[in-house]
Amino acid sequence: MAQFALPFIGHGGDYNPDQWRDRPDILEEDIRLMKLSGCNLMSVGIFAWTALEPREGEYDMDWLEQVLDRLHQNGISAFLATPSGARPAWMSRKYPQVLRVQPDGKRALHGGRHNHCFTSPVYRNFVRNMNSALAKRFGSHPAVVGWHISNEYGGECHCELCQEAFRDFLKARYGTLDALNHAWWTGFWSKTYTDWAELHSPSPIGESALHGLNLAWQRFVTEQTKNFLSAEIVPIREYCPELPVTTNLMEFYGQLNYFELAKPIDFASYDSYPRWGEGDYARTALKVSFNFDIMRALKQKPFALMESVPSQVNWQPVCKLKKPGMHLLSSLQAVAHGADTVMYFQWRMSRGGSEKFHGAVVSHAGHEHTRTFRDVSAVGDALQKLPSVLGAMPNAKAALIFDTENRWALDDCQGPRREKRLLETALMHYEALKRQGIDVDVIDETCDFSAYSLICAPMLYMLRPGVAERLTQFVKRGGTLVCSQFTGRVDEDDLCFLGGFPGPLREALGLWIEETDALYDGETNAILTNGNSYTCDTMCDLIHAESAEVLGTYAEDFYAGTPALTRNRLGAGSAYYIASRPEQRFLNAFYARLTDEAGVPRLIHTLPEGVQVASRAKGDTTTLFVMNFGNAPAVVTLPAGRDLLANQDIVDSECELAPVSIRVIQYAAR
Amino acid sequence: MAQFALPFIGHGGDYNPDQWRDRPDILEEDIRLMKLSGCNLMSVGIFAWTALEPREGEYDMDWLEQVLDRLHQNGISAFLATPSGARPAWMSRKYPQVLRVQPDGKRALHGGRHNHCFTSPVYRNFVRNMNSALAKRFGSHPAVVGWHISNEYGGECHCELCQEAFRDFLKARYGTLDALNHAWWTGFWSKTYTDWAELHSPSPIGESALHGLNLAWQRFVTEQTKNFLSAEIVPIREYCPELPVTTNLMEFYGQLNYFELAKPIDFASYDSYPRWGEGDYARTALKVSFNFDIMRALKQKPFALMESVPSQVNWQPVCKLKKPGMHLLSSLQAVAHGADTVMYFQWRMSRGGSEKFHGAVVSHAGHEHTRTFRDVSAVGDALQKLPSVLGAMPNAKAALIFDTENRWALDDCQGPRREKRLLETALMHYEALKRQGIDVDVIDETCDFSAYSLICAPMLYMLRPGVAERLTQFVKRGGTLVCSQFTGRVDEDDLCFLGGFPGPLREALGLWIEETDALYDGETNAILTNGNSYTCDTMCDLIHAESAEVLGTYAEDFYAGTPALTRNRLGAGSAYYIASRPEQRFLNAFYARLTDEAGVPRLIHTLPEGVQVASRAKGDTTTLFVMNFGNAPAVVTLPAGRDLLANQDIVDSECELAPVSIRVIQYAAR
Amino acid sequence: MAQFALPFIGHGGDYNPDQWRDRPDILEEDIRLMKLSGCNLMSVGIFAWTALEPREGEYDMDWLEQVLDRLHQNGISAFLATPSGARPAWMSRKYPQVLRVQPDGKRALHGGRHNHCFTSPVYRNFVRNMNSALAKRFGSHPAVVGWHISNEYGGECHCELCQEAFRDFLKARYGTLDALNHAWWTGFWSKTYTDWAELHSPSPIGESALHGLNLAWQRFVTEQTKNFLSAEIVPIREYCPELPVTTNLMEFYGQLNYFELAKPIDFASYDSYPRWGEGDYARTALKVSFNFDIMRALKQKPFALMESVPSQVNWQPVCKLKKPGMHLLSSLQAVAHGADTVMYFQWRMSRGGSEKFHGAVVSHAGHEHTRTFRDVSAVGDALQKLPSVLGAMPNAKAALIFDTENRWALDDCQGPRREKRLLETALMHYEALKRQGIDVDVIDETCDFSAYSLICAPMLYMLRPGVAERLTQFVKRGGTLVCSQFTGRVDEDDLCFLGGFPGPLREALGLWIEETDALYDGETNAILTNGNSYTCDTMCDLIHAESAEVLGTYAEDFYAGTPALTRNRLGAGSAYYIASRPEQRFLNAFYARLTDEAGVPRLIHTLPEGVQVASRAKGDTTTLFVMNFGNAPAVVTLPAGRDLLANQDIVDSECELAPVSIRVIQYAAR
Repeated sequence: MAQFALPFIGHGGDYNPDQWRDRPDILEEDIRLMKLSGCNLMSVGIFAWTALEPREGEYDMDWLEQVLDRLHQNGISAFLATPSGARPAWMSRKYPQVLRVQPDGKRALHGGRHNHCFTSPVYRNFVRNMNSALAKRFGSHPAVVGWHISNEYGGECHCELCQEAFRDFLKARYGTLDALNHAWWTGFWSKTYTDWAELHSPSPIGESALHGLNLAWQRFVTEQTKNFLSAEIVPIREYCPELPVTTNLMEFYGQLNYFELAKPIDFASYDSYPRWGEGDYARTALKVSFNFDIMRALKQKPFALMESVPSQVNWQPVCKLKKPGMHLLSSLQAVAHGADTVMYFQWRMSRGGSEKFHGAVVSHAGHEHTRTFRDVSAVGDALQKLPSVLGAMPNAKAALIFDTENRWALDDCQGPRREKRLLETALMHYEALKRQGIDVDVIDETCDFSAYSLICAPMLYMLRPGVAERLTQFVKRGGTLVCSQFTGRVDEDDLCFLGGFPGPLREALGLWIEETDALYDGETNAILTNGNSYTCDTMCDLIHAESAEVLGTYAEDFYAGTPALTRNRLGAGSAYYIASRPEQRFLNAFYARLTDEAGVPRLIHTLPEGVQVASRAKGDTTTLFVMNFGNAPAVVTLPAGRDLLANQDIVDSECELAPVSIRVIQYAAR
Repeated sequence: MAQFALPFIGHGGDYNPDQWRDRPDILEEDIRLMKLSGCNLMSVGIFAWTALEPREGEYDMDWLEQVLDRLHQNGISAFLATPSGARPAWMSRKYPQVLRVQPDGKRALHGGRHNHCFTSPVYRNFVRNMNSALAKRFGSHPAVVGWHISNEYGGECHCELCQEAFRDFLKARYGTLDALNHAWWTGFWSKTYTDWAELHSPSPIGESALHGLNLAWQRFVTEQTKNFLSAEIVPIREYCPELPVTTNLMEFYGQLNYFELAKPIDFASYDSYPRWGEGDYARTALKVSFNFDIMRALKQKPFALMESVPSQVNWQPVCKLKKPGMHLLSSLQAVAHGADTVMYFQWRMSRGGSEKFHGAVVSHAGHEHTRTFRDVSAVGDALQKLPSVLGAMPNAKAALIFDTENRWALDDCQGPRREKRLLETALMHYEALKRQGIDVDVIDETCDFSAYSLICAPMLYMLRPGVAERLTQFVKRGGTLVCSQFTGRVDEDDLCFLGGFPGPLREALGLWIEETDALYDGETNAILTNGNSYTCDTMCDLIHAESAEVLGTYAEDFYAGTPALTRNRLGAGSAYYIASRPEQRFLNAFYARLTDEAGVPRLIHTLPEGVQVASRAKGDTTTLFVMNFGNAPAVVTLPAGRDLLANQDIVDSECELAPVSIRVIQYAAR
Repeated sequence: MAQFALPFIGHGGDYNPDQWRDRPDILEEDIRLMKLSGCNLMSVGIFAWTALEPREGEYDMDWLEQVLDRLHQNGISAFLATPSGARPAWMSRKYPQVLRVQPDGKRALHGGRHNHCFTSPVYRNFVRNMNSALAKRFGSHPAVVGWHISNEYGGECHCELCQEAFRDFLKARYGTLDALNHAWWTGFWSKTYTDWAELHSPSPIGESALHGLNLAWQRFVTEQTKNFLSAEIVPIREYCPELPVTTNLMEFYGQLNYFELAKPIDFASYDSYPRWGEGDYARTALKVSFNFDIMRALKQKPFALMESVPSQVNWQPVCKLKKPGMHLLSSLQAVAHGADTVMYFQWRMSRGGSEKFHGAVVSHAGHEHTRTFRDVSAVGDALQKLPSVLGAMPNAKAALIFDTENRWALDDCQGPRREKRLLETALMHYEALKRQGIDVDVIDETCDFSAYSLICAPMLYMLRPGVAERLTQFVKRGGTLVCSQFTGRVDEDDLCFLGGFPGPLREALGLWIEETDALYDGETNAILTNGNSYTCDTMCDLIHAESAEVLGTYAEDFYAGTPALTRNRLGAGSAYYIASRPEQRFLNAFYARLTDEAGVPRLIHTLPEGVQVASRAKGDTTTLFVMNFGNAPAVVTLPAGRDLLANQDIVDSECELAPVSIRVIQYAAR
């Protein structure tokens, strides 16, 4: 694997000179403005296929060379993209087999983007030829510092070739039809398969409610997308093995298992489009950080912020402008959580097309005299003060498990209520953890648990092989584990554990869950603990404590008085169970205690409302980011060290942060 | 026809040993647990086609014989099912013509259940062979006491074979195209058919707004489903003519006319899945009773409760647990209204598949130490005290007409507002009737009216041939008839009556309806009567009283002061018209008076809020069920007799019913 | 072109004797009732194709001749319809290519109406033959006074013939693919077309987000519909060149550009179906007038009210009855705004079919003793008093631009928020204008601006060629122009103006719009002006005043204090910019001032709440219509003149209008 290690914090964005080839004046002006705004890194060629290959087999790459040359001459680097995210119309017309087929069997017409069959040998061949040509010609270009493979992979195809590939995937996974039939429990409703040829992807006009099939299909889609991504990388590695590759990922995207997809790439990159203004900033910021913490976990390395917007997007239901200060704060929030670049979609607003009103560094007005341009320049200034964080990582002692395969299974699960609220629950636990002023990793079931002292695993409905055992070991060795409602119901094929829930976690948690009640929206119960009462909602597990001790009980309904919060001491550690979804206030208090109990170090001891922290460490040096997302000034006690943005030393003292502002303090290990 | 007359009240449920053929230990444990829970009747083989015929023409029925043997050896009976509700994948693959075609002409892929073309000769042949094989082999098995034909018939197919069958149905019904064109008024929008081949089922991409066509198609779907059901029964009758057959029906299911569909079966059976906890119990209980009262009317005989759930289902948006007491109360509510069985879906939770979290007697934990198992056992105990009600029926003197064909026509009717609220209106009238402490039959327009002294016929928009005449006769002979808003608009083909609404009911009701106003949701008028004012909503008929006397008038709008409530005395009886949809309070008071006027006997004179009653009589003996669905204790005056559950005699006296509880009192005719 | 100039105000409606050919008694009764109700004009044959041509090539028109004869013998005239709105089933069966193809490529089945491919040469041939036969036979019939072409054109077809026609349309519009690619900015997402054959209509399963394509397709649909309409007219013109032709149009119908579609017809006609009772009458009345004012602008001539309902429709979600007085008031409201007919759908209620409960002059009861019949007769009486308004037109000095192509572009525009609220904004400006007691024309960007002194152009997002220049000239010559939020972003192909918004209107408005903030639903800012504060919402342009003076500023958010309302004096006139969507109260005050400033004459000086006015002038005579839509009596000062309805002279004096009533005053020019 190649290393992602720039000598500077990347600043720039998607750059589409192919849209302005008849305007050399504008291309020249771009260079002037890039330098003026402190931009040093551009992503080029992302949707340029027709510009690069206007007719089958005829490549036209001179314009791209000129662009790369001009960038390099002006000290600007580039991520070079493969253009597979959108193919030319001529290809769809001549080779319709490259178009996707919908779940109902209908082949799409040409249009949109991200619309290729990921199995099609024809498309793979076109991609291989294109990527080879690009890598051969530009692999050694001095401007190019990395590869941007395709764009925001997603979607699926149901053509006959994909059906065959799916059957091969199933044969490899299950070996025999008997094994598959057992794993999917096809005896129910007479769904037993008697020939591999009977297997077909889920479809609204066919089979849609066989959970085992749905889950296998989702795994196949990840597998086939990863396989396509790997195939894209082959010619790149051949011609420029030394450059790192990435592909840009999306917020909370649930259709692909990113922990699996990220395996072939060298570093993760991420497109961040928070809805600042929809609800309060602090809550939005937590969602953003949650995703950043996933991105960092994918490769256990710093990642690239590949896309963000310096003003407003155009595709959200309501696209608000960023208020003064927010662009700097949100850009550095990425850096705080492990980003080694701050990049935008896009450099210059396109003149037409569906995203023509998507924000950019340069607007349709075309000059630098805009608020947005000034905001971007300010980020450029700030980033030049922070190169010492490059490559640094937090020393997180707490982790939250948010597993995509568990999410698939839970979303598809029928009963005891349609909406399970996994994501909301995970975010509530994450918020309570972050309120303790600590670094948190957001990982999946396959990650190594050994570095942590506290693991929060909300709603671990599906336990993949070995996970329960590894969590049990984690506890026995002194770890603190928190599980919550609807845990431990099914194995990796969505077959229920027999003998009593939470199945293989029963020993670790020391309890048996007999039933689970569902609550209507707006309906609540309450958890009584330590003399306090906290509402809870959505679902209530009805529990028999076995080896666990009861810390809290339900306040209402026929199961009032039965356990709602338990702790099981096991070996050197403890495993907690929260049997319902309690309000935020409960979780804040709960994790305040656990943070201390588990000895998770706090970066700052008392965090005012709206203030969030994160850190990155390298060698003996820690860089602390203190961010005020609140709408009022906040007083925090900062450690002694160097204020990197102000470029001055500070002593350990109280300090006031303005609303929507950030301080970056670097200090030696204490 | 064969008799449905078990020597015991059936208790048990859907049993799927085919899912556990590799676990003989579990099958053996099932027998132990059935006996422990007081279960004596299982439905077997419902979705077992692939288990019974794993390859075309190769039957494997030994496992089923072993199951039936073991049941019989342990004193447990069985309803044996035909497996047509879900066919094997091998059949769909080799004979795709068995798959349904959607209204847009697209044939479904294999998947789901209840997905066969009901015309396909191929599928009918497979079913005939399967049913013959089952009947031949198990028709005389001592465990088998009845046949469970298919499962919850529903849906439709639009393939070319069905189109041909539909055209044949239309030829038989109308004779000539001229007659059809007149009946459907095809001159409107130039829809005149000039060749039978032009006729096609309704389709969102074709004809969707020709009411006559829509109505004919709905009738055809019932007819073709009935025809399929009859074909399923033929081989059963051949090999075991003495056993009764049924098919299980669904709550408020509107796609099939059950009064027609039930003709070939010997007894009705019903799947009851109330949403206890969505709104108050008493209101939910009325919806349940309404359906029970339909089921009893279908064959004028006791029916089977074929499915219910002892804990929670998994497919409702929110699936609440049954509170303590509710399982007993709701099970006996079925018996109160005419059920001679209490059965469950399902005996044991399936380990996988889409209903794996659907409640069952035996949970995934697999043992008897659960609340649900104890609840089921308590029902088993209770049922053993009630064999004297087997075969008994209420002597209802009041009936409510809820006609499926009228429902079809009204749902499809355009104007004067989209939502007509037939079902809600019918339930409000039903509630007011039941509050009088009386038994009620819920019948359709084709039923015999002669046994009743009070008939409530809300929103009889469509009057099928002879219905108006029979209702008029009913009144003349002394009956009390109640009609309500939007009555008497169209004939059986949805052609408007000319000359003045309510058409052929004009004589009986003694009035002319000139116009009908529509009210927005939330908008109300009021009815002034007897010095009281009651709100009304949805629609207001504007009436000219002819021979009718005016009992109430509208309070508002430009038609204030015009008639809103009338009574027409005709012959020995009276016909009332309620011109709008009044609030529940009005209906309660209105039917309190009419119950007395019409001499309908009350089972109990004063019913506290939340308490409901029903009775079953046989010979001189009446069994009265008094049910408290309220959340507070209720005091009622019970008749002298024997308390069957307590197994003791009581004298006529005040007695307190706990919340969610039931008393069953048996007494001799008074 | 032929003249639309009846010697009387037309009164009547759609008449469908073809539905009652087996009931000569009813046809005879129709004649009696028409005369009784003061009806003098019927539209016949609208959906009569199968009656006119029951088998291919066999015409049966005798029945129609008899109907026309009987009408004429009784002094009743007719608009004769071409029946292309719904074709016979035999045609669809034999020639399926006449059926439409959906955007997903699926061909429709026969059914519905308005379902023909507008390109199909087969269908065009059938239509030409039918129209020729009708025109030949009835073109000189003395009853026929005009032609009603088809019915409510709408919809689109995506078949291969339409794709070819679309490509031809594009070739004609753009000449070269290079020009098309530039205009649609296809470089974005690699959508460049390299062959005309790659072009395809927008489709949800293909290209759906290329704005240039979408816009071109919408223009093509209008063009092809107009082409079809023109082809329908050819045989009519051949056989009866002297009779005027029309086609009936719909309320706010956005799929066709009526200003373009109306070119081949001689007069506009309109189907008016307000929802009286959904919200208050006055607000509803404004929507109705807005559409009337468009209809009048289409041909700059009086139009026909072709359809309206005398009681209630049947297809709205809630269809309320018209209250007493409303039928007269709403009928004369049409006349007030330029209608020379008052006509209904329909004369007699059809007995079956989907609109059988749609109101009509004659109900299913079949006689004249109904409220509706009396209401219609009262309108007949009133119209006989108003022939002096025939051909008269208002002298509007104020115009509002509501441009369909701008609406298409804005509706399709992505960002800065999904809902732009163009229609709501236009209606708010219109309401404020009408509150000044003035006549208003509602025009599009292509109309002549020279007659006006005040032009209100809300949300002119798209500026077609020359429009900005013509508006700038309008201001320079002394006009008052009002523009508002989100103005001047794109050219006619939806390409953004470069160099600063509002692009070519920058000179006229004297400002630069740097950014546009989007507000959530419920979120507001405020405009401070003249010491008052007015809320505003939806979007806020952030402005730099250049030559404009600042009249108002924002009150909140980070752009508080920046311009929200500006005036630019240019030449002899002024151009105002309202940078957001202010509340109605702001607009009322704003236009009160501007009406005076611009010297727009008020018909009445003080309009009480609920009262609306309109006028029609011919020679020296003005007829003023004063309408009270309020629910309380209103006092207005009427000019001296003749009260046409009361048939008496009045002096200039205060007068009270009852709720839901109208006065019509005629006076000589002052």
